[in-house]
Amino acid sequence: MQVLFATSNKHKVLEANVVGKRFGVEFKQLKMSYPEVRDNSVSKVALEGVKYVYSKVRKPVVVEDSGLFVKALNNFPGSFSRYVFDSIGIQGILDLMYARKNRQAYFLSTIAFHDGKVLKAFEGRVDGLISRKPSGSSGFGFDPIFIPKGSKKTFAEDAVFKSKVSHRVKSVEMFCKWFK
Amino acid sequence: MQVLFATSNKHKVLEANVVGKRFGVEFKQLKMSYPEVRDNSVSKVALEGVKYVYSKVRKPVVVEDSGLFVKALNNFPGSFSRYVFDSIGIQGILDLMYARKNRQAYFLSTIAFHDGKVLKAFEGRVDGLISRKPSGSSGFGFDPIFIPKGSKKTFAEDAVFKSKVSHRVKSVEMFCKWFK
Repeated sequence: MQVLFATSNKHKVLEANVVGKRFGVEFKQLKMSYPEVRDNSVSKVALEGVKYVYSKVRKPVVVEDSGLFVKALNNFPGSFSRYVFDSIGIQGILDLMYARKNRQAYFLSTIAFHDGKVLKAFEGRVDGLISRKPSGSSGFGFDPIFIPKGSKKTFAEDAVFKSKVSHRVKSVEMFCKWFK
Repeated sequence: MQVLFATSNKHKVLEANVVGKRFGVEFKQLKMSYPEVRDNSVSKVALEGVKYVYSKVRKPVVVEDSGLFVKALNNFPGSFSRYVFDSIGIQGILDLMYARKNRQAYFLSTIAFHDGKVLKAFEGRVDGLISRKPSGSSGFGFDPIFIPKGSKKTFAEDAVFKSKVSHRVKSVEMFCKWFK
């Protein structure tokens, strides 16, 4: 079964297809941008996004929004993660965390689906810590500074572990189970 | 002449009315929220916002969006200033600027007006520097760390100077000249 995945980020589609394969679901990238509401809820951003994309393509489609939520920074950068990554980057987060003892953080991913009738969201979460310095080169975004619970390596150092526990793997799994 | 000003921030209305008085224009606060597009252009946010608010109230109305753009931080926090202020605050900006020699920054303010026929935007800008520590207690937002060109005091230390050169004073002046 095939479903469109509206995103400009091919990494997201690659990650989704690794999971989808196990369920016989194939995600096909649709390079289409959509208005993102300015809200610190990734679910709200994904749900509003998928409604917009569906209204344009009139085919079953998913949209994903995700973010890194850092406890000591009042959940900054949250659903604004991409903008923050593009402006102050990984070093910006490390500068903000310089004197912080509490390194707790989590990633959230929401997959929102719409086919004109059903509108549904699936949220995945992974807890972990912000590292003291960037490490590793796989993945993308804030992966080099996020150490998931149960590991001593960052997401960017251990793609295999990431593919088992990541927020996106969880949200995609939930979607696939429901979709098929 | 009266015009509605859609905002939850009463400080913005107070500042606008100080300018409006000189032109015989009175801004009346309309406490109404509107979807903010996730775009680092304050003009785009204000224009999309005023179209939405007009569609609800069907009366001539203005919306203002503003932001602090820091050169060394790739224009962060820009039009996301309110969200950044609410999460990492003034100290967050100072932490990000800790080792930076280039302290250049500017504030932008856009007033967008719509009455169902005319849709217009007025942009004001003030250049300055990010201070090494917060100072002063007047104003709001990032005022305590912004030193405008031509002064040695922050906006929060010198409300009189702010009322002459600020980004919002400039955008409101442009709007009032055109409106009356």
